Amino acid sequence: MTSIPSIPKGTRDFSPIEMERRNYIFDTIKKVFHLYGFMQIETPAMENLSTLLGKYGEEGDKLLFKVLNSGDYLSKITTEELQQKESTKLSTRISEKGLRYDLTVPFARYVVQNRNDITFPFKRYQMQPVWRADRPQKSRYREFYQCDADVVGSNSLLNEVELIKIIDAVFTALNISVTIKINNRKILAGIAEELGIPDKSLDIAIAIDKIDKIGWDNVVKELLNKGIQQDSIDKLFSIFDFGEPESKTIVSHAPPAPSDIVYNNLIEFLSNSVIGKTGIDEYNKIQEYTSNLNIKSRIEFDASLARGLNYYTGTIIEVKANNIEIGSICGGGRYDDLTGIFGLPNVSGVGISFGADRIYDVLKTIDKFPKESGVSTKILFINFGKQEEKHCLTLLTKIRQAGINAEIFPDADKLKKQMNYANNKNIPFVALIGENEIAENTITLKDMNSGEQKKMNIEELICLLNVK
Amino acid sequence: MTSIPSIPKGTRDFSPIEMERRNYIFDTIKKVFHLYGFMQIETPAMENLSTLLGKYGEEGDKLLFKVLNSGDYLSKITTEELQQKESTKLSTRISEKGLRYDLTVPFARYVVQNRNDITFPFKRYQMQPVWRADRPQKSRYREFYQCDADVVGSNSLLNEVELIKIIDAVFTALNISVTIKINNRKILAGIAEELGIPDKSLDIAIAIDKIDKIGWDNVVKELLNKGIQQDSIDKLFSIFDFGEPESKTIVSHAPPAPSDIVYNNLIEFLSNSVIGKTGIDEYNKIQEYTSNLNIKSRIEFDASLARGLNYYTGTIIEVKANNIEIGSICGGGRYDDLTGIFGLPNVSGVGISFGADRIYDVLKTIDKFPKESGVSTKILFINFGKQEEKHCLTLLTKIRQAGINAEIFPDADKLKKQMNYANNKNIPFVALIGENEIAENTITLKDMNSGEQKKMNIEELICLLNVK
Repeated sequence: MTSIPSIPKGTRDFSPIEMERRNYIFDTIKKVFHLYGFMQIETPAMENLSTLLGKYGEEGDKLLFKVLNSGDYLSKITTEELQQKESTKLSTRISEKGLRYDLTVPFARYVVQNRNDITFPFKRYQMQPVWRADRPQKSRYREFYQCDADVVGSNSLLNEVELIKIIDAVFTALNISVTIKINNRKILAGIAEELGIPDKSLDIAIAIDKIDKIGWDNVVKELLNKGIQQDSIDKLFSIFDFGEPESKTIVSHAPPAPSDIVYNNLIEFLSNSVIGKTGIDEYNKIQEYTSNLNIKSRIEFDASLARGLNYYTGTIIEVKANNIEIGSICGGGRYDDLTGIFGLPNVSGVGISFGADRIYDVLKTIDKFPKESGVSTKILFINFGKQEEKHCLTLLTKIRQAGINAEIFPDADKLKKQMNYANNKNIPFVALIGENEIAENTITLKDMNSGEQKKMNIEELICLLNVK
Repeated sequence: MTSIPSIPKGTRDFSPIEMERRNYIFDTIKKVFHLYGFMQIETPAMENLSTLLGKYGEEGDKLLFKVLNSGDYLSKITTEELQQKESTKLSTRISEKGLRYDLTVPFARYVVQNRNDITFPFKRYQMQPVWRADRPQKSRYREFYQCDADVVGSNSLLNEVELIKIIDAVFTALNISVTIKINNRKILAGIAEELGIPDKSLDIAIAIDKIDKIGWDNVVKELLNKGIQQDSIDKLFSIFDFGEPESKTIVSHAPPAPSDIVYNNLIEFLSNSVIGKTGIDEYNKIQEYTSNLNIKSRIEFDASLARGLNYYTGTIIEVKANNIEIGSICGGGRYDDLTGIFGLPNVSGVGISFGADRIYDVLKTIDKFPKESGVSTKILFINFGKQEEKHCLTLLTKIRQAGINAEIFPDADKLKKQMNYANNKNIPFVALIGENEIAENTITLKDMNSGEQKKMNIEELICLLNVK
């Protein structure tokens, strides 16, 4: 006896009901992307490892799924190499391809490879799975979808404004109340510059980003570990309205000051930093443009927002669902030189990425998936035998021509089994057609919710199903 | 200087225009699947190799893309094993996962794994890429999409009838004229039985299947090579209305007899074969049921149709585009025991698979892709500077609320560059809004096809774009 088969850990099957819900999310996002003039592309699941390696840091390289070369992949490997038994070294010798780790690097590769055929600014979106050999855990999978929209080839802040409108439109359509947090890497660079440690910009950003999670005193420890002096830390803290305390007196998990106070502090603090002031100006313009556009989401300046990826150079964006404890459900930012790694420098871009899995979890938590998907079956014809099924097939043709999703149970099984099928598939109506109905050319329709039965002709049935 | 990056051979990027066209095909097929009550599932790209190996024959095993285990995958391999340098043997030791080769085996695995949650008969569809380490050549790729619909858990021929209706509905919707060829493995088994060589059923089928490609005399050679006697071959040929010639007199590439003559010959030839007669009866029922259903495609009995896959046991179906030289664009059949390999015997199923790539080629050849995709941008707002763009953003919000896909050029670049952008993206209308238009609260609209310009207000614009 064979044991029950399974799938690799960290991967998932999606059942019909899960697919309906996932498609609801994907379709909503797609529709908004189209409204804003973004066009879809797809790239292959496998990329050359030379495209992927070195783009996600050392840790990222380890998380790439590598695909074994076909054929006699050992033929060119010497016995000496094999005897070293070095897995990492051997892997690049027996494997040339890897599964894509995200959609950003393949997109950069696509832009460079097709630069002569692309009309810039290029507004593309992409919705495809990515793969990471991460340790699987709750809400972290080895295969998951990303939904990215990017504009490359334009420095205009109008792109940021449009992306913020897209975020607002998507979450408004999905009935999710969100806060859109905005910061700018130039502000973070300005802070580091003013502290006299311009090369520590990212270290500071990443440490500050953790205030919510690990508390102020642990942030201090991390900053000290990174070699940042106590007086710099004190100055840093003054921005966040804690005066200039010594680190030991800082209360753990104290909330940061309201964002408008921090913002005003920053304007003063950065008054001598060219890059810092540019960051402030950019934020101001986004603020000015978005304020009149009937945006429903809360937009908030967040100086502690860093985002881990080191290719961001300007605006950074992160979206949190209000009143729900879950990580960010969308994020993005501007990058000045993503295609540079593939030999096409000076192509600025800005993009956002929606986290489909987390959005799914939010919608499930707040119970906001639509009750009617539009793709499921509206009516099941019960099968009473050969004459009846032949009659039903003709009716089915008419019903489907009217655009109504309809089925006939394929076997003349017991009525109970057929009704169970309708129940399990959540089919709202059942048609019962026996000898009498054939003779009268009528349909007995049963409403599965109310239990009511009613006789009607085919035109009445189509009319009724089209309204419901 | 970095060289221009590339993608693995046999894989493809899909540009925006290609994606629009591919989505047109996928969406059309999906809509029909929904009309017939099929529900979508997805399975992971990677399956355990234990699920995949041995399911596609020895040749298939070689064509599986295997994914290298993560971490120190060599740690458990002995130096002796390594020194053998046997690629095939080592691959199963350093790789536990593979990319799916088709959608059928993962579906069988899904059904067995989820048998307690599934309502049977289970009507599922699946549209996902599959991967094969085939030698890439024209129209053969290492990554390509399959679009499968299957019903499992029902023996009823009504399922075959519904699938034939689906095929007809899809190709009617796509404006492709097709012939649906039907045969039955039981008829092929009956022929072999009557020839006294019941175990040669598949050999005969596969040889006959090649009549069109290699001609009669080469088929004879192949049959002789398979150990089939000359008198059996003569009998076989009598079915196809060539009398009982000696093989040497047969004209190469002579067309087979019309299908109705072959069909009548078969009724007589199989009159003593139980399995053969069952096959004829099954075909008759399908013929009877489909004849009254307003099916637009030609349905044709084809005794030479075999289909390579050895899990088929009943009806087999293949679809050819009329008047176009291309392989089959859809195919399928009934299998009695696909889930048996995973320990769940006696679950009969029947399914079809649409070949998206070939359908794409056909639509391109006959120039039947729709001119308007519905997803591309309808209007571009020209950017004349800061005051103008702010004004345009407000108008854009209104236009998009009306469901119209619209863009603004993000930079105040030269008019020519902006107009080129509209041309290259095939945007049919351009809005020109300068100082005057802002003062008057009007829009100057340019029709990019006719070149005409006209002033209007926002309500008139929305009305016009909604009609066009």
